[in-house]
Amino acid sequence: MLKNTTFLDALALRHTPYTPVWLMRQAGRYLPEYRASRAKAGSFMDLVRSQDFCAEVTLQPLDRYPLDAAIVFSDILTIPDAMGLELSFTVGEGPRFAKPLRTEADIAKLVVPPMDSLRYVFDAVSACKRALNDRVPLIGFSGAPFTLACYCVEGGGSTEGYPLTKSMLYSAPQVFERLIDVLTHTVADYLIAQSRAGADALMIFDTWGGILPAAQYRALSLAPMAEIIRRVREKTATPIIIFSKGAAGHSLEQMASSGAQGVGLDWTSDLAAARALVGKKVALQGNIDPLIVTTTSAAVEAAARACIDEAGGLPGHLFNLGHGLTPQAKPELVGELIAHIQTLSRAKKST
Amino acid sequence: MLKNTTFLDALALRHTPYTPVWLMRQAGRYLPEYRASRAKAGSFMDLVRSQDFCAEVTLQPLDRYPLDAAIVFSDILTIPDAMGLELSFTVGEGPRFAKPLRTEADIAKLVVPPMDSLRYVFDAVSACKRALNDRVPLIGFSGAPFTLACYCVEGGGSTEGYPLTKSMLYSAPQVFERLIDVLTHTVADYLIAQSRAGADALMIFDTWGGILPAAQYRALSLAPMAEIIRRVREKTATPIIIFSKGAAGHSLEQMASSGAQGVGLDWTSDLAAARALVGKKVALQGNIDPLIVTTTSAAVEAAARACIDEAGGLPGHLFNLGHGLTPQAKPELVGELIAHIQTLSRAKKST
Repeated sequence: MLKNTTFLDALALRHTPYTPVWLMRQAGRYLPEYRASRAKAGSFMDLVRSQDFCAEVTLQPLDRYPLDAAIVFSDILTIPDAMGLELSFTVGEGPRFAKPLRTEADIAKLVVPPMDSLRYVFDAVSACKRALNDRVPLIGFSGAPFTLACYCVEGGGSTEGYPLTKSMLYSAPQVFERLIDVLTHTVADYLIAQSRAGADALMIFDTWGGILPAAQYRALSLAPMAEIIRRVREKTATPIIIFSKGAAGHSLEQMASSGAQGVGLDWTSDLAAARALVGKKVALQGNIDPLIVTTTSAAVEAAARACIDEAGGLPGHLFNLGHGLTPQAKPELVGELIAHIQTLSRAKKST
Repeated sequence: MLKNTTFLDALALRHTPYTPVWLMRQAGRYLPEYRASRAKAGSFMDLVRSQDFCAEVTLQPLDRYPLDAAIVFSDILTIPDAMGLELSFTVGEGPRFAKPLRTEADIAKLVVPPMDSLRYVFDAVSACKRALNDRVPLIGFSGAPFTLACYCVEGGGSTEGYPLTKSMLYSAPQVFERLIDVLTHTVADYLIAQSRAGADALMIFDTWGGILPAAQYRALSLAPMAEIIRRVREKTATPIIIFSKGAAGHSLEQMASSGAQGVGLDWTSDLAAARALVGKKVALQGNIDPLIVTTTSAAVEAAARACIDEAGGLPGHLFNLGHGLTPQAKPELVGELIAHIQTLSRAKKST
């Protein structure tokens, strides 16, 4: 039995005594204890493959802050790696695939990888679940098919709006759709397996869906996520949150109809306007600018106050940042942010 | 008397026989004739300071394509350069300021620069106007105060969401507001002077307003643009278009109430939804993904058809891309795009 169900209650739009808090990339480089663990021998992927390392760093922010959920330490690029694209991380340059998918032939031979090749992730989920000892729920996650496709085609990150990916999707739409289709099947299997391994909630991260025109976003990013939710639902009732950075402005209503229990909002959305648009259909997660926790105590307090005012103390708000914590986040400001959100929302909900 | 008033008619929501077309960065590196002109001796800023060069390259796309407007060749960073930040362009790295604005002291001593220091821009406007010989209207432009502030504080472009700028605006809001205030006064004077030099329309480019939370966008980017429009309106009736990449999703209605005659939309917006939201209040400009013209004829035709379908053949649509042409754009596809838009819209408007 979970000792803290605030996160799951809010995700189900049930009343909670305060707004639950977790933070994207809450286990990460801004924490000195993470940097110490990370300094151990081995590449980043060696560490992601170690269930001991994953459990250790997953719990670090929980030991420091009164967070209401944990998220398994892993990476969204485990799936393309399992498909044979050969992932590596270079210092200062981010992820790279030795074998990107550039041609019709590359994609024609692509298959859903056996889930056994991703067992290390499910083992990490189980290890985190054991280590948590039911303190808070554990979130499992995957990248969204479109976001994974961006990295697969481009061969890594892009600061230019993923030109190779867009070139493929505009000039060879059937080829691109096959890539999305294989990824959709894979992500569904991957999330089902994480749920079976102990995840209490599942999150789909769509970092790049927002680079698409609205119509293409709905067809190539949101529809595959809805298909994943449908497939997961056939096997388990584990709640699902979707998050597409930069797409809520044109497609929030469609996201709320995807079958997801929660929709994540980036820092540009107005929480009150978003709630007015979706009503009580879904929980909303978000959404302070992650750069706030690189600044000052006064700025953190002002942002927390504005966020709780906008969210209105209604059920169905999960506090998070609007994107992941950066390495420049100040740990003491992260602590102040969490305290402000929990205190301010407790006061608001009790009035 | 202008020989082609399609652009100005559409901007005033009057009926036009077809949808007028111009393209952001239509004079640029994708054109071989531009690259040939650009290869002349001198830095980029030397060329921007030459009215002969500006007139020559401004007219190049007009000689190649049946465009319905010209835009003076210049750069948005002329204003910070005139403020003493010392602009230079390094190959592959983009703009750099030798003296960025990082401290309260830097900003305390900032003043509106004398417009005489920007005379070379107004001379370029006049030279373009003479060279055009009334073929089509000429657009003058400026960067928006918030976008200029981003470059001033950061000291150049950022692929990390302008962390120094955000740090200043969150932790020293009065300091940042003084910067915005000086830029607002300057941009207003700058646009008035371009109008007097012969510009038939004015555009305010806000490349970075979309990185802000909705409330900060409205206070720090849109409100200053509305103040500029108010100041310009005291001196001239020259119509104004504003364009904030990434902000229409949360603030399109507010943009339409800014006093601008036109609102530019980036490639993520749905044109039909945008029109439904703003009614007949403003013209809408946009919005095909600029990467389309790096792909294939079939993709260009499909995108043109979808755009004209979405825009519905109603008055008040100015065709453009959703952002500037990239150096990878194929000149023959740009020509096909223009032809498709003009032909398809002519057929639609005559039914």
